[in-house]
Amino acid sequence: MIRNDYFRNFIHEYNCVVYLPEMEITKPTLLLNKEIVLRNIGNMLRKANELNLNFRPHFKTHQSAEIGKWFREAGVKCITVSSLTMANYFADAGWDDITIAFSVNIPEIPEMNELAGRINLNVLIENMEGLEALQKQISWHTGVFIKIDTGYNRTGIEANRIPLIDQLLEGIQKSPLLQFKGFLSHTGHTYLANSTHDIYSRHFDALLKMKALKARYQSDWPELIISIGDTPSCSICDNFDGVDEIRPGNFVFYDLMQFKLGSCKLTDIAVRMVCPVIATHPSRNEVVIYGGAIHFAKDSIINIDGKPLFGRIIVTEGDRKILLDEKNYLHALSQEHGILRITPQDLKYFRPGDLIEIIPVHSCLTANLMKEYLTTEGEIIKMLPFF
Amino acid sequence: MIRNDYFRNFIHEYNCVVYLPEMEITKPTLLLNKEIVLRNIGNMLRKANELNLNFRPHFKTHQSAEIGKWFREAGVKCITVSSLTMANYFADAGWDDITIAFSVNIPEIPEMNELAGRINLNVLIENMEGLEALQKQISWHTGVFIKIDTGYNRTGIEANRIPLIDQLLEGIQKSPLLQFKGFLSHTGHTYLANSTHDIYSRHFDALLKMKALKARYQSDWPELIISIGDTPSCSICDNFDGVDEIRPGNFVFYDLMQFKLGSCKLTDIAVRMVCPVIATHPSRNEVVIYGGAIHFAKDSIINIDGKPLFGRIIVTEGDRKILLDEKNYLHALSQEHGILRITPQDLKYFRPGDLIEIIPVHSCLTANLMKEYLTTEGEIIKMLPFF
Repeated sequence: MIRNDYFRNFIHEYNCVVYLPEMEITKPTLLLNKEIVLRNIGNMLRKANELNLNFRPHFKTHQSAEIGKWFREAGVKCITVSSLTMANYFADAGWDDITIAFSVNIPEIPEMNELAGRINLNVLIENMEGLEALQKQISWHTGVFIKIDTGYNRTGIEANRIPLIDQLLEGIQKSPLLQFKGFLSHTGHTYLANSTHDIYSRHFDALLKMKALKARYQSDWPELIISIGDTPSCSICDNFDGVDEIRPGNFVFYDLMQFKLGSCKLTDIAVRMVCPVIATHPSRNEVVIYGGAIHFAKDSIINIDGKPLFGRIIVTEGDRKILLDEKNYLHALSQEHGILRITPQDLKYFRPGDLIEIIPVHSCLTANLMKEYLTTEGEIIKMLPFF
Repeated sequence: MIRNDYFRNFIHEYNCVVYLPEMEITKPTLLLNKEIVLRNIGNMLRKANELNLNFRPHFKTHQSAEIGKWFREAGVKCITVSSLTMANYFADAGWDDITIAFSVNIPEIPEMNELAGRINLNVLIENMEGLEALQKQISWHTGVFIKIDTGYNRTGIEANRIPLIDQLLEGIQKSPLLQFKGFLSHTGHTYLANSTHDIYSRHFDALLKMKALKARYQSDWPELIISIGDTPSCSICDNFDGVDEIRPGNFVFYDLMQFKLGSCKLTDIAVRMVCPVIATHPSRNEVVIYGGAIHFAKDSIINIDGKPLFGRIIVTEGDRKILLDEKNYLHALSQEHGILRITPQDLKYFRPGDLIEIIPVHSCLTANLMKEYLTTEGEIIKMLPFF
């Protein structure tokens, strides 16, 4: 599928020089910069080591056994996933210490049990129904985290609901196969922050709640782990007091949403969509590309003009890459079409048949749709085909 | 993957009775009601026949060779797709008359040419660059439509840009392998209509524009076809004066967006997501399901409370299905999680481990993510695996 001379020559992009083999791109293609990925992995691993935190990266962003190998080569030994399907896929790829960071899905417990028979598996509970279903159906040693809601209000138990936590712990204690591992949270409301200060304060508030639980239960459960997870906190904050484990995922690629939050620089974003230009419509300052909702997914951020932005645009001029300013952006998506808003002076970069690059807003969802990567080394990397 | 007694007994849902074999659903699953699909196909085909219109359904909604067979068995002979990948997939499944209703993507022309060598292929142009690239690279007879913008302002040529249309026609005439087929439009702004009246008026306005083109060019091109396409117009309107062909796609499944537009009744919607309940959070009137952005996609409509709605909810009570009112709805999606807003009196229908059904907002994008269907006859139907 991928032939053409799009990258015949070296590309000097921002501060990284990339050499690419001769290849041809004819349709929307997710380009992965391996150098940036390795640097992102290295940076987060170093931070975890320096702060004496166990590093259990979330693999739902990349969903790829091959990229998993890059983590392993960097020294990572245990991982997080968000579904049993993903856990099975990575277990088949040789990972033997996996946390499914999704409150237990009761109908899947029999299949979960099979997996617990062959690897070290941790699951999450947040209610008695989940615990009782595990007690009845699990026949292998399984680690159990209690999912704590630190304020995101999506899933989990509010940290002050001590009677429910006590009830769950009592139940776990009665089940010889269930091993209490600790308290796990995802402070996902850092994604909704309006400033870096907001991220610090939400992270700090989450730390206080998790530390209070640790203080309360550590004497009875001296091995208990506090595990936290979001990429904004793990990228920006330095205080992880009381935390034992971090589980960021998105940092492996980053994206425009993380850039907007202050988690990364633009040059830390490891993925881009390459899309062909289909038509230019100068009368309304628009360019149509092949690349739509089935390629990018529909997450957006608010642009400087108050409108939703689905991606930033990079064009090629000779052997130079130019990141256009925010007045030029991917502003609408239908099933296969993307509409770029382009200022009159920048329309010159777009002709039907050209290939342009788009930095995506939410790399997890874009990767999930694209199902494969083309690396800057010219390799095609497959992902988990189904979920 | 799919076992369980979710449908052990017959299900009397609205006005259709469905018998299902014993099976087990453990994770988000896209359920397809074959009876409704066949009825939707039959209704649209009958309408086309009665109005003497060629019926060239768009297959991007279902993307499935198997569902394609149901169309063929109903008497359909030619189809529309939105990408070359999809055209190749359906050509392999035996379709030999295909229109790629997406303005020509220049880098794919060599592969398009290969397909034109084995089937009757029609492509779309909207600029000289596209036409010139075809002229240079096409070595097989290929049908060409000129894409007309009837007001949606996504792609195509405004109907009054006669000099450009003349220039394109002149170019086509000079190319013995390119056969001018006619003018094609997608009045996609019917999707943005606020009332049925809006749909009528946008459709009528589009008809006037297309009829004017037909009147102007019919003497030189007596065989020229006027092809139009959107599901709202094709479902709601009865006046297709001057039109020769219709290409609706979504009507095969319909969805909540179409219901809101007035294109269908709720009982015409052929797809539903079955999702397990993960947790209930009565303190904030919320229920968490396994089923998120990677299953549903993120299109939403505005609910009666002014908030985005991602799906309507159906629960089971004994052997009865109950469609909950709009105060209960899927109101947020993250990667794997869906959050339902549930009124206190309806919380009784939700327990962790239960399976519920969600009627999706945009069936095309949901199907594209799910990649397979479970039919109400217990069959698993695969889709085009990659785009």
